[in-house]
Amino acid sequence: MSRIDGRTPDQLRPITIERGWSKHAEGSVLVSFGDTKVFCTASMTEGVPRWRKGSGEGWVTAEYSMLPRSTNTRGDRESVRGKIGGRTHEISRLIGRSLRAVIDYKALGENTVVLDCDVLQADGGTRTAAITGAYVALADAIAWAQGKKLIKAGRQPLTGTVSAVSVGIVGGTPLLDLCYEEDVRAETDMNVVCTGDGRFVEIQGTAEAEPFDRTELDSLLDLAVAGCASLDAAQREALAATL
Amino acid sequence: MSRIDGRTPDQLRPITIERGWSKHAEGSVLVSFGDTKVFCTASMTEGVPRWRKGSGEGWVTAEYSMLPRSTNTRGDRESVRGKIGGRTHEISRLIGRSLRAVIDYKALGENTVVLDCDVLQADGGTRTAAITGAYVALADAIAWAQGKKLIKAGRQPLTGTVSAVSVGIVGGTPLLDLCYEEDVRAETDMNVVCTGDGRFVEIQGTAEAEPFDRTELDSLLDLAVAGCASLDAAQREALAATL
Amino acid sequence: MSRIDGRTPDQLRPITIERGWSKHAEGSVLVSFGDTKVFCTASMTEGVPRWRKGSGEGWVTAEYSMLPRSTNTRGDRESVRGKIGGRTHEISRLIGRSLRAVIDYKALGENTVVLDCDVLQADGGTRTAAITGAYVALADAIAWAQGKKLIKAGRQPLTGTVSAVSVGIVGGTPLLDLCYEEDVRAETDMNVVCTGDGRFVEIQGTAEAEPFDRTELDSLLDLAVAGCASLDAAQREALAATL
Amino acid sequence: MSRIDGRTPDQLRPITIERGWSKHAEGSVLVSFGDTKVFCTASMTEGVPRWRKGSGEGWVTAEYSMLPRSTNTRGDRESVRGKIGGRTHEISRLIGRSLRAVIDYKALGENTVVLDCDVLQADGGTRTAAITGAYVALADAIAWAQGKKLIKAGRQPLTGTVSAVSVGIVGGTPLLDLCYEEDVRAETDMNVVCTGDGRFVEIQGTAEAEPFDRTELDSLLDLAVAGCASLDAAQREALAATL
Amino acid sequence: MSRIDGRTPDQLRPITIERGWSKHAEGSVLVSFGDTKVFCTASMTEGVPRWRKGSGEGWVTAEYSMLPRSTNTRGDRESVRGKIGGRTHEISRLIGRSLRAVIDYKALGENTVVLDCDVLQADGGTRTAAITGAYVALADAIAWAQGKKLIKAGRQPLTGTVSAVSVGIVGGTPLLDLCYEEDVRAETDMNVVCTGDGRFVEIQGTAEAEPFDRTELDSLLDLAVAGCASLDAAQREALAATL
Amino acid sequence: MSRIDGRTPDQLRPITIERGWSKHAEGSVLVSFGDTKVFCTASMTEGVPRWRKGSGEGWVTAEYSMLPRSTNTRGDRESVRGKIGGRTHEISRLIGRSLRAVIDYKALGENTVVLDCDVLQADGGTRTAAITGAYVALADAIAWAQGKKLIKAGRQPLTGTVSAVSVGIVGGTPLLDLCYEEDVRAETDMNVVCTGDGRFVEIQGTAEAEPFDRTELDSLLDLAVAGCASLDAAQREALAATL
Repeated sequence: MSRIDGRTPDQLRPITIERGWSKHAEGSVLVSFGDTKVFCTASMTEGVPRWRKGSGEGWVTAEYSMLPRSTNTRGDRESVRGKIGGRTHEISRLIGRSLRAVIDYKALGENTVVLDCDVLQADGGTRTAAITGAYVALADAIAWAQGKKLIKAGRQPLTGTVSAVSVGIVGGTPLLDLCYEEDVRAETDMNVVCTGDGRFVEIQGTAEAEPFDRTELDSLLDLAVAGCASLDAAQREALAATL
Repeated sequence: MSRIDGRTPDQLRPITIERGWSKHAEGSVLVSFGDTKVFCTASMTEGVPRWRKGSGEGWVTAEYSMLPRSTNTRGDRESVRGKIGGRTHEISRLIGRSLRAVIDYKALGENTVVLDCDVLQADGGTRTAAITGAYVALADAIAWAQGKKLIKAGRQPLTGTVSAVSVGIVGGTPLLDLCYEEDVRAETDMNVVCTGDGRFVEIQGTAEAEPFDRTELDSLLDLAVAGCASLDAAQREALAATL
Repeated sequence: MSRIDGRTPDQLRPITIERGWSKHAEGSVLVSFGDTKVFCTASMTEGVPRWRKGSGEGWVTAEYSMLPRSTNTRGDRESVRGKIGGRTHEISRLIGRSLRAVIDYKALGENTVVLDCDVLQADGGTRTAAITGAYVALADAIAWAQGKKLIKAGRQPLTGTVSAVSVGIVGGTPLLDLCYEEDVRAETDMNVVCTGDGRFVEIQGTAEAEPFDRTELDSLLDLAVAGCASLDAAQREALAATL
Repeated sequence: MSRIDGRTPDQLRPITIERGWSKHAEGSVLVSFGDTKVFCTASMTEGVPRWRKGSGEGWVTAEYSMLPRSTNTRGDRESVRGKIGGRTHEISRLIGRSLRAVIDYKALGENTVVLDCDVLQADGGTRTAAITGAYVALADAIAWAQGKKLIKAGRQPLTGTVSAVSVGIVGGTPLLDLCYEEDVRAETDMNVVCTGDGRFVEIQGTAEAEPFDRTELDSLLDLAVAGCASLDAAQREALAATL
Repeated sequence: MSRIDGRTPDQLRPITIERGWSKHAEGSVLVSFGDTKVFCTASMTEGVPRWRKGSGEGWVTAEYSMLPRSTNTRGDRESVRGKIGGRTHEISRLIGRSLRAVIDYKALGENTVVLDCDVLQADGGTRTAAITGAYVALADAIAWAQGKKLIKAGRQPLTGTVSAVSVGIVGGTPLLDLCYEEDVRAETDMNVVCTGDGRFVEIQGTAEAEPFDRTELDSLLDLAVAGCASLDAAQREALAATL
Repeated sequence: MSRIDGRTPDQLRPITIERGWSKHAEGSVLVSFGDTKVFCTASMTEGVPRWRKGSGEGWVTAEYSMLPRSTNTRGDRESVRGKIGGRTHEISRLIGRSLRAVIDYKALGENTVVLDCDVLQADGGTRTAAITGAYVALADAIAWAQGKKLIKAGRQPLTGTVSAVSVGIVGGTPLLDLCYEEDVRAETDMNVVCTGDGRFVEIQGTAEAEPFDRTELDSLLDLAVAGCASLDAAQREALAATL
């Protein structure tokens, strides 16, 4: 059985990671997972939030947002409604936790990195694309800070790499990296965040229609781990290029 | 190695489920998982939100909140701050999804149930206690509606039962049903929502300190499935009693 | 003429004051006036708001709220609506003023007590139950602070006791401690806050249907003063018990 | 003992009630109680809020606000802070209740009157001046509606007159119509709203420093009733003039 | 062709500038352009916003607002809606910029002046009346500060005078100082802020119906410059009087 | 004297207008004025806001926003702060008015177009780039609607073209299309919106440092009109290409 866009069940969409997309940000990436496009900037500043001052440790946080017409029908701006929706909050927190999983706060020193992930075009998997792209922007911002001596010589705040992918069961078949149409029809939907060494940072699986059993869970995890390995390779390739 | 409160790693805290705690609500429960106490009410009303009118289908949603002094130090009220925090949003959404997983919307008819889960005292596992208690309040509200003929004779909106428990790795050991002190020290923290037949409705695992591997994940899932089976029994026992 | 629930005009509903209802708060009480149940916690912390720093004086404030399904039909959460309603504001301010009336700020020292009064179940008189219960929680918090030496030896921040009750004219008859059904039908409604020595801290009388004259006012005040004396006795009895 | 401004204890400040202060509003008044100046407009529109439609009954409501520099030091605008404070809510509700006490909703028909009371200059007693002035604006709006046949011929929506005054105990002496300096120093502070026939619509008494006893209460009520009688005369005189 | 109110195209409405309208504010003016009436207060305080501290320079800012019934039909209060509308923001910013154009921050020293411009009655040109009146209130506040020695002897923070007027093309004819009815029908609408020496501080021209050409623009600017010269004279006359 | 980036005073920065940047929106453009990049989408839907229903006329509106790191230092998100700033409001309103100036509402029929202009990178002139790009997105959306027969055959809702440019006086020299560094140093700053036939839709000139005289104004207008003619040509060229 072939998928809507002709992929095999274990195949990612075309992945692109373009660095240097902003002249202002310390790190910036336009990441695409097929038609999903997310603009990630990493803003690094000296100093930390008040509750962390004097600790000698840094902080990393993230904010996710969708442009109003990133989706098929236009959504209201959260700034106009005057409050942030639950989904936005949830994804911003997920991105922040995922990146903090590979940060050594002591090595970062009292510096703060804010990752802004703005979805320019959505076609499923915006949060996983955001995490994958934000990692690269973060790496660039840290390299910038090392160049500026904001981070002490010989210290490496990054303890590993991190990427994320969605998996799901559609029509009984486990699939990797769902596009929007697949996502809508999925019986089960899972987002998996892995480090480059194949361990888990976050697993969020939800039965949309029917509860899932242990066997289904295992096949989804297998797909996700393999997918993250490919994303890890794409991140390394992108970072290997000269900016 | 024994736990802070003397439990074995696979042991739940004392669980109590008291029904009929409100004279107003169609279903109401005071659930406790050890010192964690959550007051769950199910409010059933005829009619559905506008986007669902005329569909013949019902709706179930949830709102979670912590009383300001349910925790060790007093927290600000979200009503006073004028906005709901990300954590509150996230948990409210989780509770709603978990209960909807065992609802047949057609059988429910155009009725809405709102589950309010207010934490009176927090000691870890407030969201899992809330799901476990809210299921019982929901069952009572549905029974009430059947008595009132709001639901057609012979229709059963509940397609199963649902309960939830937290698991985590503390000091390298997988533990069931973490209390607050264990939760704070956990390397990995996972909330698992299961149906009574042992399938998964939701899995949310987060590496707090160190990424976790497949073996650790498997042992956590084993603990959680067994814990939910015990909670399922407690729910059935509570519901078997005359109100 | 007997009342809905069989009471005489000058009879309180059954009053219960249960202390020690929270393991976290410095003082905590579940107070009930018949079916009205209010959970009161007193949170004591060192330090005062900025505008009071350096004065050597403490501060006492209160926040009142109703759980969404404390009433017969579910109300929206103020946190979800994003703003606090006028009634909530008004009652929070009343509770705060009432308790401050028996506080010696100098003796309290630069400490702050926040009284949270959350209505679990409403059946009329929630604000008067809240004041009556909050006083007991406050007394426990002050005793706790004296034990912890947060308050200087030999100083007593409490200058008296305070309790509150509602009175009203229903069908031409002055009644004490209105339940919800009576409250709805009252021509005149009054909340009276008294100290233990029978003086007034606050009087708030409102003509709901027909203006009231001086004779009616006097009979309402007589009822209220007697009711507060009984509540004062109940508070003393509760506080006399070992926690 | 003479007062700050030379008045006797039972003397009102100079009262002025200027009608026709707005060319747009159906009724408008600039009322002054000494240096306290409140601009009151009555806006009458056909129709009622949704919850009252089809009842055949009208509605009257009020909004109170202080201009930022109506006070000695500039206050923040509530529109800029994005929320209305408790005091503003409380006073708006008091004004609305006070005016509704003299309204026959049936005679008003399905029309709504909104009273806006904006304090241009504050020197104590802004809420009582607002009630006193708003009554006159309301009377003018009703006369306008009668002229426009919005109200059925022969129906009189006003069932009486209403005015308000503050009283308080300062330095042990009961005083009428406190100015700001007296208000600040008052041991007890009370706002009394009376109908023209000397009955009570609202009594709000607060012990600011020391609880007050029944004798003090009685002397305050005597002062207030006499003060309202004078205000009633001032209102009648103002309304007797040709606009 | 004569105008609605009988004026010639280049004629201002009757202008009045009454100083000393508030006993609290350091400067206060009731300005009227025909039936448009704006109450302007200047509040001067020592100190500047945080971002300006230590600069030795002062700050001037403005807030504009319309009373709910200043217009023909009542508008909602922005405080009740919980947010400030775009038009209010825009006009507040315009007034602030216009007054800052004639301020020497160094001479002002680290003092802040807030201009509050509250529209009591609107009939077109509220923002231009506000700027014209606020200038006079500002001048009075500065004179007050000089008297109090808040401003160093010999320093003059005002570098000139400023006033504003609206112009527009109605039925093909350029007109000065539009009233509301003219404003509604204008093809082009322009607000012009000038210094007393006839130079421009701000020009805001908008084609409401039809784009306008250079010739039309020139005739509008001619009208506006002449109008501002008259307003400048009115300001000087008002300030020449003894307060 | 040459400019920071080597341009002559009357020279635009390199202008690019890329159409078809979104697969979802009915019209979409990435416009750049040098390093200023704005993503403009036009969302067309059937129906109009409530106040316009049944009029047979359409509506066009705009929302402007800056991504948090579009600027040199990161700005807070307006959605996180919970309110939209004055500058954002002002620019959104300007863009909407500018585009409505070339719309025939009757020909548009009861359809609504929302233009979203999100600044990806800012280097001065974001509002003028937004207007210039939004016009092209709007033209594409209208062409789409004509293809879908949402607009009646033979009707052309666009009555002309519109573009915008900034001009300013820097160091005494009038300059066209200011970049950020020039904008910061400008004595006078003006945004001019023109139709393709060289008439004015909007003129907003502000003296930042020193009031400007009529001669300076004239030279700025000359520059702006010439600049808009070039932008008009760029728009036509972009629209001439096959999408």
